[in-house]
Amino acid sequence: MTGAEILLETLVANGVEFCFMNPGTSEMHFVAALDRVHGCRGVLCLFEGVCAGAADGYARMTGKPAAILTHLGPGLGNALSNLHNARKARVPVVSIVGEHTRSHLNYDAPLSADISAFAKPVSEFVRTAMRPDDVGPAASETIAAALAAPGQVATLIIPADLSWSEAKGAGSVIAASAPQAVQVETIRSAAALLTGERTGLLLGGKSLNDRAFEAVARIAETTGVRVFMDRYAPKLPSGRGRFQPHRIPYFPEAALPLLANLEHMILVESQAPVTFFGYPNSPSYLLPEQCKVFTLAGRTEDGTGAMERLALLAAGSANVGHGAPFAGSAHAPAGVAFQESDPISAAVLGITIAGLLPENAIVSDEMISMGPQVLPYLLAAKKHDQLPVTGGSIGQGLPVALGAALACPDRKVVALEADGSGMYTPQALWTIAREQLDVVTVILANRRYRILDIEMKRTGAHGYGPRAEEMISIGRPNIDWVKLSESMGVPAVRVETPGQFAAEFRKAMETRGARLIEAVIG
Amino acid sequence: MTGAEILLETLVANGVEFCFMNPGTSEMHFVAALDRVHGCRGVLCLFEGVCAGAADGYARMTGKPAAILTHLGPGLGNALSNLHNARKARVPVVSIVGEHTRSHLNYDAPLSADISAFAKPVSEFVRTAMRPDDVGPAASETIAAALAAPGQVATLIIPADLSWSEAKGAGSVIAASAPQAVQVETIRSAAALLTGERTGLLLGGKSLNDRAFEAVARIAETTGVRVFMDRYAPKLPSGRGRFQPHRIPYFPEAALPLLANLEHMILVESQAPVTFFGYPNSPSYLLPEQCKVFTLAGRTEDGTGAMERLALLAAGSANVGHGAPFAGSAHAPAGVAFQESDPISAAVLGITIAGLLPENAIVSDEMISMGPQVLPYLLAAKKHDQLPVTGGSIGQGLPVALGAALACPDRKVVALEADGSGMYTPQALWTIAREQLDVVTVILANRRYRILDIEMKRTGAHGYGPRAEEMISIGRPNIDWVKLSESMGVPAVRVETPGQFAAEFRKAMETRGARLIEAVIG
Repeated sequence: MTGAEILLETLVANGVEFCFMNPGTSEMHFVAALDRVHGCRGVLCLFEGVCAGAADGYARMTGKPAAILTHLGPGLGNALSNLHNARKARVPVVSIVGEHTRSHLNYDAPLSADISAFAKPVSEFVRTAMRPDDVGPAASETIAAALAAPGQVATLIIPADLSWSEAKGAGSVIAASAPQAVQVETIRSAAALLTGERTGLLLGGKSLNDRAFEAVARIAETTGVRVFMDRYAPKLPSGRGRFQPHRIPYFPEAALPLLANLEHMILVESQAPVTFFGYPNSPSYLLPEQCKVFTLAGRTEDGTGAMERLALLAAGSANVGHGAPFAGSAHAPAGVAFQESDPISAAVLGITIAGLLPENAIVSDEMISMGPQVLPYLLAAKKHDQLPVTGGSIGQGLPVALGAALACPDRKVVALEADGSGMYTPQALWTIAREQLDVVTVILANRRYRILDIEMKRTGAHGYGPRAEEMISIGRPNIDWVKLSESMGVPAVRVETPGQFAAEFRKAMETRGARLIEAVIG
Repeated sequence: MTGAEILLETLVANGVEFCFMNPGTSEMHFVAALDRVHGCRGVLCLFEGVCAGAADGYARMTGKPAAILTHLGPGLGNALSNLHNARKARVPVVSIVGEHTRSHLNYDAPLSADISAFAKPVSEFVRTAMRPDDVGPAASETIAAALAAPGQVATLIIPADLSWSEAKGAGSVIAASAPQAVQVETIRSAAALLTGERTGLLLGGKSLNDRAFEAVARIAETTGVRVFMDRYAPKLPSGRGRFQPHRIPYFPEAALPLLANLEHMILVESQAPVTFFGYPNSPSYLLPEQCKVFTLAGRTEDGTGAMERLALLAAGSANVGHGAPFAGSAHAPAGVAFQESDPISAAVLGITIAGLLPENAIVSDEMISMGPQVLPYLLAAKKHDQLPVTGGSIGQGLPVALGAALACPDRKVVALEADGSGMYTPQALWTIAREQLDVVTVILANRRYRILDIEMKRTGAHGYGPRAEEMISIGRPNIDWVKLSESMGVPAVRVETPGQFAAEFRKAMETRGARLIEAVIG
C-alpha cells in the first residue's frame, strides 16, 4: 500500500467519515486513494476556509473529528481563521497538510513555506511524518491529539513522496477518552455554595445538553441559584420545553448589572466571563470584585455528570426550601404583531423563524449585530440546536452549516447570516449545492458592517466622517445575494416585507433542499 | 494626537498612499482618523486576502509599499496566502494588525490569538508597539523593514488602547535605499563567461525592465549567450519591439532540454532554476550537472546596472565576433485562423488578446493550466506589463489586478483568470466595482482544476476513479460567473465562440470600466 492509502485506512479505521478538501499537486495520491479505500468521503470545497468551518460544524454535531486536507503552507493559511474558531469551540479536527517531497525542500521553490509555523497558532498538536512507515503511526497520533478532551485541532504534515511510497504499518485505532469524573469533595464544596441568587452556575463546553439542563433546573428550583451559559459555546440546545440558562450578554453594560450581586460563580466546563473586546473605561472581567470563582468541572471533566450529582446532593441538603426565589429559565420576549408595511426587523425575523422552525432543526448563527435581538425569540421555537460564534472570526456561519448538514442529513439546517459576514466564505454555497444539502440560508442584508457602527462609538472614536463611513458601508455597490447564491447553484429569493419573509421562510421549511433568502433589513 | 493619528501621519509622511483594509473593533480609531489625517486612502475589501493581493499588485507597479489593515490574528490569517505571494515577489508591504487592548490580553477572550505567530511565516519583520509614544517609531521601523531591498513584508501590531491614547513622536521618514552596485571584479568575471550559447543569463527580480533588456540584447548579440527569465518574477515587461528573455518552462520535461547544454549560468537577481513541485523520478534542480552557477547580482544588488556595464565590457572584449549564433529574443508562435464553430482555445484567447490589448496595458496572469499556451502569443501584443504568479498560492490574480489598477489609473488592466483560481478571492470584484476601476477580467471557464489532471498523472497517481474525479471537477454545479460578477457590481457577459470573445474583448478594450467576460473553454 502507498502512504496515501495507509493514511486513508487509518482515518477510516478511526471512524473519520469526511475529508473536506481543497487539494493540490502534493495531495494527488491521497485523492486517487479515495477510489481504493472506502469509508471516508472526500467533499470538495473551493476555498480552504470552507473546509475548516465544515469540519467544525461536523464535530459540533457529532463530537467526532472530520479531516480537512489543504495544500502546503498558504493553503493551510486560508483555513486558519476557521481553524481558530474550531480551536475556540474545542472540537476535534484532523488537519492534514500536503508538503513538498522531502528532497524538494532543499530548494526555495515558490510554494515553499514553513507549514508547521502556519499551523501552530491554531493547532494544539503539529506532527510531520518523516518516513513512509511513519505515516500510519503519525496519523494515529494526530487523531489521538484531536480527540484529547474536550477536543483539539491537530495537524499532520505529509511530504508528497511519503504519499506515493510503499508503506507498512497502518495506524492504530484510538479510543476516545471519556471525560474525567469530578471528585466527590469538589461536588460537596460546590453544594455548600448553593445558597440562593447570589450564587451563579456558568455552563459551557459540552455541559450544554438536555441531561445537564434537567439537572441544573432542579438545582435552580431547589436552591434559587442563577444559571448562566457561556456566550461562545460550541452548541446550545434551545427551544420551548427546555430549561434555558441565561446567556451572558455581549456588551459589558448589559452583562455587568446582570452579574453585579453575585458572591459565587461556579464554573462548569467554562471560564470566568470576560468581554469580547476591551474598551476605554470599561472592565474586561465581568464578575464583580466580591465574587469568588469555584470550578466544579474543568474543560476536560464531566460537567454533566457533576451537575447530576450536584442536583442529588442539593435535593437532600439543608439548603432546600430556604425560601430563595427560583431565578429560573430564560424566556422568549413577548410576541408583537407587525404589518406588511413594516420593515423586516429583528422582531420580524425572530418571531417568524421561531414560529416556523421545525422540530430538531440546527441553527448556525452568524448574525453579529442583529443576533442579540433575534436569538431570544428562538427560545419559543420548537426544540432545536444552535451553533453559536465561538472564536469570533467572521466567516464561520455558512461553512459550519455545511458541516452540520453532512453530519445530520435528516435535520433541517438554517444558517442565519449577516451580509458582511457571509462575504468571507461565500464559496460554502457551492458545496452546499453540490452535496444537495438541506440548508436554508437567511442573509440579513443591512448593507453595513453594523456592528462597527456600535463599536466605533463604544471605543470612543466619535464623529467619524465620510472617509470612515466608506469603510463601514458595504452598500456601494449593494451585494446582490440572489445572484451570488444562484451563481453557485443555490436557488435564492429576495424579500423586503414581513409577509414576504414569512411566506418564503415557510416554503423553505416545508421543502427539502438548499435555498437562500436575502432579507433586506429596514 | 492619538496613536492612530500618529500611525496614519507616519504612513502619509512616508508616501504610503493606500491602505487596503478590513477593519474590526480594534481598528476603529484608525478608521476614524482617515477623516482627520489625509493623504493615505482607505480602500475597503470584503475579505483580507484581497487586501494583501492588492498591496502586492500596487507594489509591483510602483515599487512602493501600500499598507494593509487587518483585525487580530484570524483576520491576518485570511491575508496570509497572498502575503506569501507578496513575500515571494519580494515587494514591500506594510501589514498593520490591530490587537486587543493590552489589559484585555490577560483574558482568554474569543478572538485572542498569537498575532505574531500568525505573521511570522510570511513576514520578514514583526514588531509590536508597546506604548503610545512607541507607535510612531514602530511604524517607521516597519516601513524601513518593508523597504529593505529588494522589498519585504513587514508587520506592525498595534494594541487598540495605543490607538486611542494620546501619543507624541510621529515616526521618521525612511529613505528607500538604492540597490547596491555590483563590484567591478564580479562584472569582469562574468564577462569572461560570455562565450556563446553554452552560457546562460537568468534575469529575475527588478532586472526585468527595458534598460536591462536593451543591455542583455546587446550582450546576446555580441556574444551568443542565451537569455532566460525567472518564471516567477514580480513584473515582466512584454510585447513586440522588446527583447524578450526565454521564460523557463513550468514542467521539467520542457525545461531540462532547454538548459541541457549549459556550462555556465549567470544569475541576475535570481536563483538557480528549480521545478515548482518535486515529482517521482524527476529532478527538482533544472541545471545540468556540468553547469556552473555564477552570481552577477544578488537580490539586493543592482542587476540592471550590472548588465549595462557587462554589455559595455562585452562589446569591447575578445569574445566579440567569435561566430556564436545569436540565440535572440523569444517570439510569439505563428498565428492561426479560426472559425466561429471552433471552441475557445488557448490560441483563440492568445491571438485575440494579443491583437486587441492596448499599448501599456497591465496583464495579471492567473490562468494556471492554460497560461503556458496563452502567454507566448502576448509577445506579439503591443508593449505591456505582465504580473505573473510569484508564490504559487492561488487567489492572487484578481486582487493583484485591483492593486495595479489603483497604482496606474491611466492604464488598462486585464486579469486573465482561471475559474478555479478566481473562486479563492472573488470578493476582489466588489472593490473593483466600488472603486470604478478600469479592470477587465477574463475568466477561462473550463469547469475543472485542469492543472490537477496533469499533476495527477505526473505524480504517478494513475487510474483515478469517480471519487477522485469529483475532487477535480468544479462543474457540478457549474459556476455562473456572469451572476457572480454582477452580484458584486461588475457587468459581465458569457461567450462561447471565438467571434463572441473577440467582439466582447474588443468592446471591453475600447471602453473604460470594470467588466468581466466568462469565456467558456471548449
